[in-house]
Amino acid sequence: MQSYINIPPNSDFSIHNLPFGIYTTENELVKRIGVAVGEHILDLQFCQNMDFFYDLDFDKKVFYAQNLNSLMALGRATNRIIRNRIQEILLEDFGFEGLIQDYGLVKQSEATMHLPIQIGDYTDFYSSIEHATNVGKMFRDPDNALLPNWRHLPVAYHGRASSIHISGTNFHRPKGQILSEDNKTPIFSATKALDFELEIATIIGSSSKIGESISISESQDYIFGFVLFNDWSARDIQRWEYQPLGPFLGKNFFSSISPWVVTIDALEPFRVESPIQNPPVLDYLKLEGLRNFDIHLSVAIQPENEEETIVCRANFKEMYWNVAQQIAHHTVNGCNLNTGDLLASGTISGSESGTYGSLLELSENGKKPIQLANNQTRTFLEDNDTVIMRGWAEKDEVRVGFGEVKGKVLGIRIELV
Amino acid sequence: MQSYINIPPNSDFSIHNLPFGIYTTENELVKRIGVAVGEHILDLQFCQNMDFFYDLDFDKKVFYAQNLNSLMALGRATNRIIRNRIQEILLEDFGFEGLIQDYGLVKQSEATMHLPIQIGDYTDFYSSIEHATNVGKMFRDPDNALLPNWRHLPVAYHGRASSIHISGTNFHRPKGQILSEDNKTPIFSATKALDFELEIATIIGSSSKIGESISISESQDYIFGFVLFNDWSARDIQRWEYQPLGPFLGKNFFSSISPWVVTIDALEPFRVESPIQNPPVLDYLKLEGLRNFDIHLSVAIQPENEEETIVCRANFKEMYWNVAQQIAHHTVNGCNLNTGDLLASGTISGSESGTYGSLLELSENGKKPIQLANNQTRTFLEDNDTVIMRGWAEKDEVRVGFGEVKGKVLGIRIELV
Repeated sequence: MQSYINIPPNSDFSIHNLPFGIYTTENELVKRIGVAVGEHILDLQFCQNMDFFYDLDFDKKVFYAQNLNSLMALGRATNRIIRNRIQEILLEDFGFEGLIQDYGLVKQSEATMHLPIQIGDYTDFYSSIEHATNVGKMFRDPDNALLPNWRHLPVAYHGRASSIHISGTNFHRPKGQILSEDNKTPIFSATKALDFELEIATIIGSSSKIGESISISESQDYIFGFVLFNDWSARDIQRWEYQPLGPFLGKNFFSSISPWVVTIDALEPFRVESPIQNPPVLDYLKLEGLRNFDIHLSVAIQPENEEETIVCRANFKEMYWNVAQQIAHHTVNGCNLNTGDLLASGTISGSESGTYGSLLELSENGKKPIQLANNQTRTFLEDNDTVIMRGWAEKDEVRVGFGEVKGKVLGIRIELV
Repeated sequence: MQSYINIPPNSDFSIHNLPFGIYTTENELVKRIGVAVGEHILDLQFCQNMDFFYDLDFDKKVFYAQNLNSLMALGRATNRIIRNRIQEILLEDFGFEGLIQDYGLVKQSEATMHLPIQIGDYTDFYSSIEHATNVGKMFRDPDNALLPNWRHLPVAYHGRASSIHISGTNFHRPKGQILSEDNKTPIFSATKALDFELEIATIIGSSSKIGESISISESQDYIFGFVLFNDWSARDIQRWEYQPLGPFLGKNFFSSISPWVVTIDALEPFRVESPIQNPPVLDYLKLEGLRNFDIHLSVAIQPENEEETIVCRANFKEMYWNVAQQIAHHTVNGCNLNTGDLLASGTISGSESGTYGSLLELSENGKKPIQLANNQTRTFLEDNDTVIMRGWAEKDEVRVGFGEVKGKVLGIRIELV
C-alpha cells in the first residue's frame, strides 16, 4: 500500500496502523480528533467537512467531539469501516491529494496531544506470572510467591481514573506514610522507592449492560484499542498500606498513557498463541483462537540533560492471562463495562532480569543497582528522571507502533503558605 | 421556622434538611433538579424561571442540568447561599405561595428518582474499628484481627463506579469463582453468601488539583453532602479473590445509593466528638473540632410479600476514622478529587451484635442464623429479599433524614441463547 504522504520506513505510524488521538495546535485551541500517519496527523474534521465518509452510515457528529468516546461507542464493526475509509483517503488513487496535503495534515511536532478518552472506570490486572512471582517473593513469601488463586483467575483491582494523564505530563514525588527503620512505626515522608510499571491498557469501545457477562469469543468486539500505560508506583507507601484491601496511595498519585490509541484491527496480524495454563481454567475462561499479541516493549530512564538508557525489553505475548480472559472474568459476575473504561494489563515482565517491567524487580528491591549510560546507577527513580516506554509490533515488513509514553519525576511539591 | 407546605412532623425532609436530587415524572421525562420537602419535591427549574435567585451571583444554568455536578462544583459557600434561599422560598413570608403550591411542587409519590450525580471515582474506606475487627477475625486471624496499619491510616481501596445504581433498582444474584468444599479447588457458582454492607457515602463538591493535598481543616469545604450506601457483597467470591490486591468481583456487581443528597450544611448541628485514637496519628491526620456526625442508621430485610424485620441499628458517630481524615489521607500523596467523586465510609458497625452492619457479622459468617418476623431465618440473603437502609439525625426536635436506600435480590440471570 502506497501513500502519497512521506512515511519514514521505520515509523510506528505506518499506513497499516492509523491510531486515533486528540490534539490541539497553536492555531486551533479546541480539541480535535486526528489519526497519526508517519510524522503527521490527518484531521478527521477536515475529512468529514470534505464529505469523505458520505456513503457510510453512522452519526458524523462523532468527528466533532473532543474525545474519542462517541466514536468508540459506534462499535467495532463501524469503527473498522471508518478506519478502512481513512486508509483509502491516504492512498494514492483516492484523489484530493493536494487538498489533503494543504489543509488536512498537521505535523505531529506542531501539535499538543491530550487524553484521547474520557476515562470511565480504570481496572488494573496482575496478569504476568513472572511479575506476580517476583513481587510475591519480595513482598510476601519466597517459597509461595504465587497465592493459591493466581493461576485460577486473572487477579485485578480497581484503580484511580482521575489521576491518569497524557504522556509528557510531569508530576511531583508523592508523600505519605512509610514504615520507619524499626519496621513498626510509620513516619511521614516523600517516597524513597518511586518506580515505574510497564503495562498495556485496553480501551473499551462498546458498553455492556449490568447483569450481562461477556464471553471470551464476544470479548474482542468490546475492545476499541490499546495504549501504553505507566502505572507509577511508590513501593514503600504501597508496602505499608496494601493489606488487606490492596494498593491505594502507592498507586493513585499519577499514571501516564500514550496519546495514540492503536486499534484492535491494526493489531490483528500480530496475534499469537497464549501460554499454556496449568491447572486448566474454568469453562468461562477457556480459550479458543489466538488471544495474545506479539508486541515488543522497552523502558528507558533518562536523567536530566543526559542520554537515555534502556533498562527493560519485554514482550506482551508472554502474558499468562490475556485481554479476552480479563474481560470475561471482569463481567462474569454481571459487572458492566462502559465506553472509555481502561483495563490495564499489570506489569509486563519476562523471565530474565533484563525483561522485568519495574525497578522493584530489576533492582531486586533496591539490592542490585542498575547501571545507566552516564555511569550513574539507579535502584529507584530519582528527581528529574524521565521514564520513556515504547511499544511496537513488526512482521513481514509491516510495523504498527504505539509511539511512546513518557513522564518526568519532579521533586516534592513545595507548599506555598 | 414555619413553612406553608404541610410537612409531617416526623418527616426526614424537614425544612432544616432540604436535600437535593434528580427526578422525572410521567409528564416530565427530562431529568430535573429538585429539593425534597416533606412529601413533596420543590422544582428548582421552576424557582429559577420565577427568578427567585435573581440577586445571587452564580451561573443559573446549573438548574437546567440533568445531574447535580455543575451545581456542586460551585463550591460550598455558593451552595450554602443557594440552600438558604431555597429555605426562604419555602417559608411563609416569602410570598408566591399559591404559585409555588400550584406549579413548583411535585408529590414524591408521583416522581421517579435517578442517580443524583455523575459519579467520577468511587473509593471505599474501611473505617469502623468494630467491622474491621469482626471481619479480620473471620477472614484472617482471630488473635490479630486488625492489621498493623489499621490504627495508623484510614484503609481504603478503589471501587467500581459503573455499577452504582439508584435506590429501587434490583439486581441478579452474581456468579463467579468460589472455593469448593475441599477448600482448594475453585468452582463456578452463584454466590451462596450474598450480603449487604451499611455505609454512608460522602459526595465531593469541589475538585482539587493533582499534586495538591487537602488538609483536615480544608476538607469540609470539598464536601457537598452525603447519601446512604449499600455495598452489596458476595462473601464467598470475595474470600477467594481478594488477596493480594483487594476485593473486586465480590463487590463490583452492584451497589445502591439513596436518591436525596443531604448537604453537609444540613448536618452541621449534628457534629459530635470523634472517638479517641490510640496510638496517636501522624500530623496530617490530627483532628481539631467536631468531625463525626450523630446519624442513626437501621437495616431491614423484607422477604417477598412479607413484613420487614430490622436486623441492625447503628450510629455513624462511632466511626474510628472520620470523613475529614479520609479526605486528608486520600490526597496526602497528591491524588486529586473531582466533583462527583464518592467516598464510602466502609461498613458501619457498633460494638454489640445487633449493631453490626453486615450479615457476615450478624450471623457470624453463617454460623448463627438471625430471626425474621415471619419466622424464617437468614444467614445470608435469599432470592427476592429486599434490603432497606434508613438514616436520620435528630436533636432538639429538628430532624434531618436520608430517606431510604433499598434494593431487591433477584435470582440468577437466565441467559437467553
